[in-house]
Amino acid sequence: MIEGKNAVAEALKADRAIDKIFVADGNTDRVLGEIVRAAAEKRIVVTFVDRRALDKKSETHAHQGVIAMVPKTEYAEVSDIVAIAENRGEAPLIIICDEISDPRNLGAILRVAECSGAHGVIISKRRGAGLSSAIVEKSSAGAASYIPVARVSNINAAIRELKAANIRICGADADADSTLWDLDFTIPIAIVIGSEGSGLRRLVSENCDFIASIPMKGQISSLNASNAAAVLMYEVLRQRANGRQSLYR
Amino acid sequence: MIEGKNAVAEALKADRAIDKIFVADGNTDRVLGEIVRAAAEKRIVVTFVDRRALDKKSETHAHQGVIAMVPKTEYAEVSDIVAIAENRGEAPLIIICDEISDPRNLGAILRVAECSGAHGVIISKRRGAGLSSAIVEKSSAGAASYIPVARVSNINAAIRELKAANIRICGADADADSTLWDLDFTIPIAIVIGSEGSGLRRLVSENCDFIASIPMKGQISSLNASNAAAVLMYEVLRQRANGRQSLYR
Repeated sequence: MIEGKNAVAEALKADRAIDKIFVADGNTDRVLGEIVRAAAEKRIVVTFVDRRALDKKSETHAHQGVIAMVPKTEYAEVSDIVAIAENRGEAPLIIICDEISDPRNLGAILRVAECSGAHGVIISKRRGAGLSSAIVEKSSAGAASYIPVARVSNINAAIRELKAANIRICGADADADSTLWDLDFTIPIAIVIGSEGSGLRRLVSENCDFIASIPMKGQISSLNASNAAAVLMYEVLRQRANGRQSLYR
Repeated sequence: MIEGKNAVAEALKADRAIDKIFVADGNTDRVLGEIVRAAAEKRIVVTFVDRRALDKKSETHAHQGVIAMVPKTEYAEVSDIVAIAENRGEAPLIIICDEISDPRNLGAILRVAECSGAHGVIISKRRGAGLSSAIVEKSSAGAASYIPVARVSNINAAIRELKAANIRICGADADADSTLWDLDFTIPIAIVIGSEGSGLRRLVSENCDFIASIPMKGQISSLNASNAAAVLMYEVLRQRANGRQSLYR
C-alpha cells in the first residue's frame, strides 16, 4: 500500500504499477482531484469508500484520504545499482543501511538518497525495515518510487561485491579519527549507515575501507540515522560539485 | 512526560527537574537498572508499575518500560539564546522553526541543533509542535534537555530581534539561486526551516537576508525538514572549522 496524497501522486508521476486506488468519499481536495484524474488517464481503477474504511485499511494512520494498492515491491540487485552509475557515467554513490529497523528512518534515508542523486540503496533482510511498509513509503515522500533498492541477506557479501567493482566502503561512526571533511568522496563510494541503537556491527565496520565521523559538539553522541545519512551524502555532493578535494586535505 | 530509556537517562544526566519516574514491574534491563540507581542518588521517587499502566500513560507508544514526569517545560527567551553565544565567545548559530508541526521533525531538529553546537532553537506558538510533547522529547534523543528553546508568538518579531543583534537570517528554499555552498556561514547566523508542507511563509522569506538552496538531484523536490536542517547546520560547522570560506566563493 502507498498512503497519503504526496506519496500516491509521486507514485503516479513515476509510472509505478498500481492495482487500485481507494479515495475517501465526498472529498473536494485539489490534490485528491488530480490523483483521480491522473489515475483515470492511466486506466487505474479508483474506488470511492467511506473515510472510516480507509482508516481501518491504513498502516500509517495518516492516509489523507487516499490509499493506493501496489503489486509486491520489486527489489533491484546490487549489480543493477552499480550498472546505473556506469550508464550515467558517474562515480557510484550508494547508501548501505545496516539493519535500520525504524521504517520512518528508512523512508527518510530513501528520500535523502533520491534527493542527493545516489544510484541506489542497499538494505538487509534481517531485522531491517523493508519497502513493503506503508510507513517507509510515506516517510520517503515518494522517493521509494524512484530510488533503486537492493535487499540482501548478507550486508558483508554485498560489500565484497561493491569492492570487486572498485567501490570504496565508508562507514559512519562517531569515534573515527577522520571527519567527513577530511576524506575524499569524489571516488566511487558506498556509505554505510549503522542501526539506530548500536551503530555499525563489528564485522561490517572491519570491512569498511575507512570510517568517517560527523563532529558532535554537544552532549548527545549521535545524530538520527537519516540525518547522519543526509549530512554525509551532501558532503559527497559538495566535494563532487567542487570538482576537487575538500579544503581540509 | 519523558518516555524511553535514552531520553530518561539523558534527562537524569542533564540534571533536569524530574518529579517522579515510572518503571515497568519485573524488568531486568541494564539501562533501566542504571536509571533506577541514578534516580535513587538524586532522590527522585521511582514507582514500579504494571507494563499495561505504562502503555496507557504513554503518548509515544514506545516507552521501553520507563516514563519520567517532569514539571511544565521552561522555555528560554530569544535574548537568552543570543547571550549564550556571546558568553561562549562564538558567532551565534540559531535554528528558527517556522511552523514545524510534526513532533518527530521538531525532535530531530532539536537533536541536530544540540549535536551541531547551535546556541538555541526558536519555535512558533502557532501551529508548531511544542516541548510538552513526549514525541518531541523522544525524537530529540534527550537533546530537548540540553538545547535552549524559545517559543515565540511571532517569528517575524523574533527575526527583527536577532537582526538588531547583528545576526543574519538565512532561509532554506529549493528555488534559491545560491546553494548552501555559495554562502558565507562564518558570520553570526540564524537558519530558518520552513514547515513540512509549504516551506517558508512569504513574509518570513522576505525578512531573510538571504536564501540558501540545497541542490536536489532527483525527482523529489525537497528533503524532510530535519534532514534539511542537518545538511545546513553541518555546512555551517564545516565552514567554521575551516576558518575560512567555502571553496566556492
